[in-house]
Amino acid sequence: MIKIVIAGPRGNMGKEAVKMATGEESFELVAVVDHRYNGVKMNEIPTMEQLDIPVYDNMTQCFENHPCDVLIDLTTPEVGKKHMLTAFEYGVRPVVGTTGFTDEDVEELSQIAQEKQLGAIIAPNFAIGAILMMKFSQMAARYMPNVEIIEQHHDRKLDAPSGTAVKTAKMISEVREEMKQGHPNETEQMAGARGADHEGLRIHSIRLPGLVAHQEVIFGGEGQTLKIRHDSLNRASFMPGVKLACETVMKLDILVYGLEHIIE
Amino acid sequence: MIKIVIAGPRGNMGKEAVKMATGEESFELVAVVDHRYNGVKMNEIPTMEQLDIPVYDNMTQCFENHPCDVLIDLTTPEVGKKHMLTAFEYGVRPVVGTTGFTDEDVEELSQIAQEKQLGAIIAPNFAIGAILMMKFSQMAARYMPNVEIIEQHHDRKLDAPSGTAVKTAKMISEVREEMKQGHPNETEQMAGARGADHEGLRIHSIRLPGLVAHQEVIFGGEGQTLKIRHDSLNRASFMPGVKLACETVMKLDILVYGLEHIIE
Amino acid sequence: MIKIVIAGPRGNMGKEAVKMATGEESFELVAVVDHRYNGVKMNEIPTMEQLDIPVYDNMTQCFENHPCDVLIDLTTPEVGKKHMLTAFEYGVRPVVGTTGFTDEDVEELSQIAQEKQLGAIIAPNFAIGAILMMKFSQMAARYMPNVEIIEQHHDRKLDAPSGTAVKTAKMISEVREEMKQGHPNETEQMAGARGADHEGLRIHSIRLPGLVAHQEVIFGGEGQTLKIRHDSLNRASFMPGVKLACETVMKLDILVYGLEHIIE
Amino acid sequence: MIKIVIAGPRGNMGKEAVKMATGEESFELVAVVDHRYNGVKMNEIPTMEQLDIPVYDNMTQCFENHPCDVLIDLTTPEVGKKHMLTAFEYGVRPVVGTTGFTDEDVEELSQIAQEKQLGAIIAPNFAIGAILMMKFSQMAARYMPNVEIIEQHHDRKLDAPSGTAVKTAKMISEVREEMKQGHPNETEQMAGARGADHEGLRIHSIRLPGLVAHQEVIFGGEGQTLKIRHDSLNRASFMPGVKLACETVMKLDILVYGLEHIIE
Repeated sequence: MIKIVIAGPRGNMGKEAVKMATGEESFELVAVVDHRYNGVKMNEIPTMEQLDIPVYDNMTQCFENHPCDVLIDLTTPEVGKKHMLTAFEYGVRPVVGTTGFTDEDVEELSQIAQEKQLGAIIAPNFAIGAILMMKFSQMAARYMPNVEIIEQHHDRKLDAPSGTAVKTAKMISEVREEMKQGHPNETEQMAGARGADHEGLRIHSIRLPGLVAHQEVIFGGEGQTLKIRHDSLNRASFMPGVKLACETVMKLDILVYGLEHIIE
Repeated sequence: MIKIVIAGPRGNMGKEAVKMATGEESFELVAVVDHRYNGVKMNEIPTMEQLDIPVYDNMTQCFENHPCDVLIDLTTPEVGKKHMLTAFEYGVRPVVGTTGFTDEDVEELSQIAQEKQLGAIIAPNFAIGAILMMKFSQMAARYMPNVEIIEQHHDRKLDAPSGTAVKTAKMISEVREEMKQGHPNETEQMAGARGADHEGLRIHSIRLPGLVAHQEVIFGGEGQTLKIRHDSLNRASFMPGVKLACETVMKLDILVYGLEHIIE
Repeated sequence: MIKIVIAGPRGNMGKEAVKMATGEESFELVAVVDHRYNGVKMNEIPTMEQLDIPVYDNMTQCFENHPCDVLIDLTTPEVGKKHMLTAFEYGVRPVVGTTGFTDEDVEELSQIAQEKQLGAIIAPNFAIGAILMMKFSQMAARYMPNVEIIEQHHDRKLDAPSGTAVKTAKMISEVREEMKQGHPNETEQMAGARGADHEGLRIHSIRLPGLVAHQEVIFGGEGQTLKIRHDSLNRASFMPGVKLACETVMKLDILVYGLEHIIE
Repeated sequence: MIKIVIAGPRGNMGKEAVKMATGEESFELVAVVDHRYNGVKMNEIPTMEQLDIPVYDNMTQCFENHPCDVLIDLTTPEVGKKHMLTAFEYGVRPVVGTTGFTDEDVEELSQIAQEKQLGAIIAPNFAIGAILMMKFSQMAARYMPNVEIIEQHHDRKLDAPSGTAVKTAKMISEVREEMKQGHPNETEQMAGARGADHEGLRIHSIRLPGLVAHQEVIFGGEGQTLKIRHDSLNRASFMPGVKLACETVMKLDILVYGLEHIIE
């Protein structure tokens, strides 16, 4: 039985995490930390799940009262870092789902984890399907270096290309030399037709109502193509990744950044 | 039985047309016209099918010797136009698979066809699947005006976007007001990510080895998407369209430009 | 301005219809009919939208107090039929989104509509994308008669194949002779591999968590394939169809069964 | 420079292998073995490439005259086995692209390779894209155990499902417990709709003209799907795999069965 504390239980991810932690037989949710409430039970707060579980506004007090194994932190980078430091002090392994940590933060936290020989996982993306897509794309690029990425999102998205597309392109660049793709003399009759260029690899961003979050990575070789596609509908898709991280962090004695490094 | 003459029997399309015309029970290939050969049989020319069918280098002489119903012309725009004029004189209905006619050419030929009350078909594209894709896209755009086009071709293609993608976008523009798609404030972090812009509709061109000629048109609406995709592997895909054109031209008494106008 | 009454405003479809009718500038929602409530406003009933619109439990009384153009009926076949008869009496055009009418019902209601020269639409499916997919599939099958259907749904679905897949297959059968597809001597090494057989056309049902409701119709011809795919995420996808039906029914003087018949 | 002998140079695969071995800078084709010809050059045989490379009908004589590093064998299982034994005697590493070896054959050949500490590769499938698809499918199934396979082939194929689909299902079964998928009470209204059953995983076989050889493996999880698809157009797609095998076999000192085991 892995004893779990969740920080940030009222957010979208947090709500799903509470459901997951209370639904899994091998997990026990012992407390939650929310900066707005203290000394009450979750079922006394209207927007929380109707559970008889204590709420703290303070991580130290929470750990003092409730010895536990894993902290699932779904707050912000600043708060998350403080929570991780406190967790390390109490011998608790953190699983943190936050983007926005600086390289220095990660370096500093890694050293502490190593000194204490405590597992820790920081994962900007918990969607296992997306992680697999990125990992497989990197593996495939060694053997089929001609690649393009098509990412598709709803038309309320402001930025293009998506963060996942850029991450995928960077992971591919780690194993592939820069190479110009397409015909050496190709021309665009209409600007932008060939998409965005990342070291010769092209990225295309589709935005339409009715789409949610999708990405296809296409590899081309003489006489064949390989396509790896991930479709994401909602945040429930993150929970298998959070669960896997909780299980894996118990076996680790270092900090791992990115779920792709705990997938075999 | 429809009696057929084929002009341009040695090209890729011509070879397939010869096979089609001799393979269909309701068709009879009576002669071919090739500017290089005259007064011989096809089986005397190494690169032609081994058929006992006469070859002429002259359309008039061919029609004088072989009364026929339909001329399938797979030559060039200049030659094709002359052939059409000759065909009209002899009461033969032309089916012409050539791009590059000017608007004036088409106008002039249409008037003659109308005067003579003779059917004629000029089709820049005989791939029925591609024609259906374009026609359906135009129909769908009335009801689902948010559209993007993704076309995918082998990496030896020089131009982007493809002619079919531009044609599709223009056909959609005929039924749809110009409208900016995507979020009003969307920005490209990498130039070109959102593709080429045709009156607000975005076109994306993928180029990879292993691809042949593919196009997907995606329509998005609240809670749903509709996708229409055509995959073309080789020129054999054009023959059902040529056959349909030969059958349909017999029932026409005007010139029709574009196979999409004879599909119900 | 089209004046609208909605029957069944508390169901999933009804709620979306209320949103649609109050959100469109050219529509005015004048009243709703709900068998549970009478003589109140919608905003007095907790589960309804907070609107100052009167609620009736009786269609006749509603029409007496509120002259209107269109009745959107999202109840049951029995109730829906009664509502339609009342609507016809009051010169109101019904738009009915109910499956389960018998052929006799439809025949009887059609005769009344014709006598009164009043438009009426009964639509078992309002998802325009799905309607377009079925209509295009029927059109394509005339030219590319080799077809297979792959439908994909979440794994809580009990029946296979889906109603939409069967409907699509039947619509294709209207324009296509029965024909055995695949190799004449093909064999299944594992039973069921080639799917379900509908007059030679094969239907395949995928069931997985993470899927919602999807269907792809694949047409194959020599050297080419054409694919038409619809993805449906939620009931919001039905509203453009309801809206289109309300606009179209005003121009009709007969009953139309099936949205596919009002799409050009 | 890797010195290569090719056995079976007149077959489809053999012709592609000759092109590959003479086109790669780091490879040198020193001779070919063909049971029909002896003591001539390839350019003396009409159906062979016009190369000045000697042809032998006998493997021993070929190795005696031409010391080499790798034998690419594209013959039959019986001949291939003899060729492998001869290769082992001469210290030549075999790369064999033949299906049909028995388990006993592979066991026996493995022992010899191990004794001689000579690398050897037997690969029933050299299409790297297909190998990657199968390997990734196996990896993904650990994390997303709900899977269905859709394979699509031309309509001249006799058997269903395809060998690749069955191989993929077996590889998935190695890492996944048998589990019934879909709703526990699901029923088929039309027999075969849910496809073929392999330990609870469903396989669907599409057969249409215009298709070549395609397979999609779909993984479903709460709120997400992952799809891995391979499209194969022709035998040229096998050559990157043959090349990789030739390079890798030089670093091996055991026999490896299946290209998936040399991909990292």
